[in-house]
Amino acid sequence: MIERIAILGTGLLGTSVGLALRAAGFRGALVGWNRSAEGGQAALQMGAVDVLAADPIEAAREAEVTVIAVPIYATLDLMEKLTLHLGGDHLVTDVGSTKAKITQVGMSHFNQMACAAFLPGHPMAGKERGGAALADAELFRGAVWLFTDVPGCVRSKRALELIKGWREWVTAMGCKAIDLDPVRHDELVAWVSHLPQFVATALSALLEEEVGDAPELKDVGGRALREMTRLGASPYSMWRDIAYTNTEAVQAALHALEQRLAHLRENLRTPALRDEFEQANRFRRE
Amino acid sequence: MIERIAILGTGLLGTSVGLALRAAGFRGALVGWNRSAEGGQAALQMGAVDVLAADPIEAAREAEVTVIAVPIYATLDLMEKLTLHLGGDHLVTDVGSTKAKITQVGMSHFNQMACAAFLPGHPMAGKERGGAALADAELFRGAVWLFTDVPGCVRSKRALELIKGWREWVTAMGCKAIDLDPVRHDELVAWVSHLPQFVATALSALLEEEVGDAPELKDVGGRALREMTRLGASPYSMWRDIAYTNTEAVQAALHALEQRLAHLRENLRTPALRDEFEQANRFRRE
Repeated sequence: MIERIAILGTGLLGTSVGLALRAAGFRGALVGWNRSAEGGQAALQMGAVDVLAADPIEAAREAEVTVIAVPIYATLDLMEKLTLHLGGDHLVTDVGSTKAKITQVGMSHFNQMACAAFLPGHPMAGKERGGAALADAELFRGAVWLFTDVPGCVRSKRALELIKGWREWVTAMGCKAIDLDPVRHDELVAWVSHLPQFVATALSALLEEEVGDAPELKDVGGRALREMTRLGASPYSMWRDIAYTNTEAVQAALHALEQRLAHLRENLRTPALRDEFEQANRFRRE
Repeated sequence: MIERIAILGTGLLGTSVGLALRAAGFRGALVGWNRSAEGGQAALQMGAVDVLAADPIEAAREAEVTVIAVPIYATLDLMEKLTLHLGGDHLVTDVGSTKAKITQVGMSHFNQMACAAFLPGHPMAGKERGGAALADAELFRGAVWLFTDVPGCVRSKRALELIKGWREWVTAMGCKAIDLDPVRHDELVAWVSHLPQFVATALSALLEEEVGDAPELKDVGGRALREMTRLGASPYSMWRDIAYTNTEAVQAALHALEQRLAHLRENLRTPALRDEFEQANRFRRE
């Protein structure tokens, strides 16, 4: 039902989307565009896209569905440009990590008479390092793909079909789709995604200061330390936009954790330590 | 060279030691003792020990090397009892997670004329859940095994042979042995082992409060959240003794992380965020 998909941004996520679509049986055309030629070539060589476009607008105009897979502010820029050039039978969707701002722009610039439809999306999958070279057809297997669509949009019949079709491909890639209000989305991911990232960054930065000059001592921490600092490798370039577009919710989550750590520190020798461990055990009950 | 080893405590670590010794080619006798009969039976059925003793003293008296693999305060209790019953040709060693207190007791109650030798040890391996059922012959493969021996001990020629022999078995089990001063050990593990654990506990406990009543939302966090909270399943029973015997160093590490998180929270929209990510990236450089 979808014949041609444009993937704007062939980094880790965009390239993985192409590979996963192919693995799930998508037989239509896949057009890629990437800001740097290098990332585009890698995606092309991996078979994630069939062809590269020189210009994102051109790629999108010739496709029925456009998947934007670039950082958040770059997504907002592309949305501004695309809305001028796409008619009502196009669908634009994205994979951005915060959704309040993107959804707001999506509703004001798309989803109106003679405008393309916009479906805000966010696959909860990734790696601590980016780039097409790490892309994986199985990246989305078992993951949740969040959508933050808003009721009452004006959309063409064809656009509604494309939305239904895209949601089916998301499921076919191995994802469980969950619909959420965009503001609730940003609050939720502040807790379950952004807080873990910023904790790993703070822990890694602190340990670099403490034991960074003695690399053999990093090995002492074993698997537990490796896991707790894996996300320390995540790039600022991606997380800056998240910090900017979800500042208040992330601040609240960080502040709550600071208080929790202080409570634990003050109770290392009191029965309150047992309560904390038991509460943590409940989160990990199977 | 070592013919008979007693393993006191057949939980995750003790049972894994038995299995790893066998896998590494140890042909001597392995005697197990466990406080509860259930854990002992599991170790026996898995082949981690050949026979169970009813009494830890008896098991140790008949062995040349005794490995204590119980929580820290229980280790100190067993050490007090063993020193009254073992002569100078015995070696006692342990796997406790803090070493200042255990090493101090080891030096005052052992390592003297007509006393058994005591070699304080700490394998940096484990799982977030304990018990013989999760034991694994490969648990120590690639891990660091720390020793915090103190120079100038009085030991028999036979005890020195047993120490050499035990260190060789540790290497044969796949470990890299590192020698450290006991106080330096406790400071180091406060950073690379205890801090990651207490952070995972605080994060898990906080998230249980925030999203614990909506289990489907835990899935949203994906692999990153699972890794950052895996240690949240760790039992209080083990960590209480660590918190008690390494309180000051753990407090200092927790306090430093609280400050780091506050710094990050205050700089979500400033260039200092880039510095934190770059410092964290350095810790994870490959």
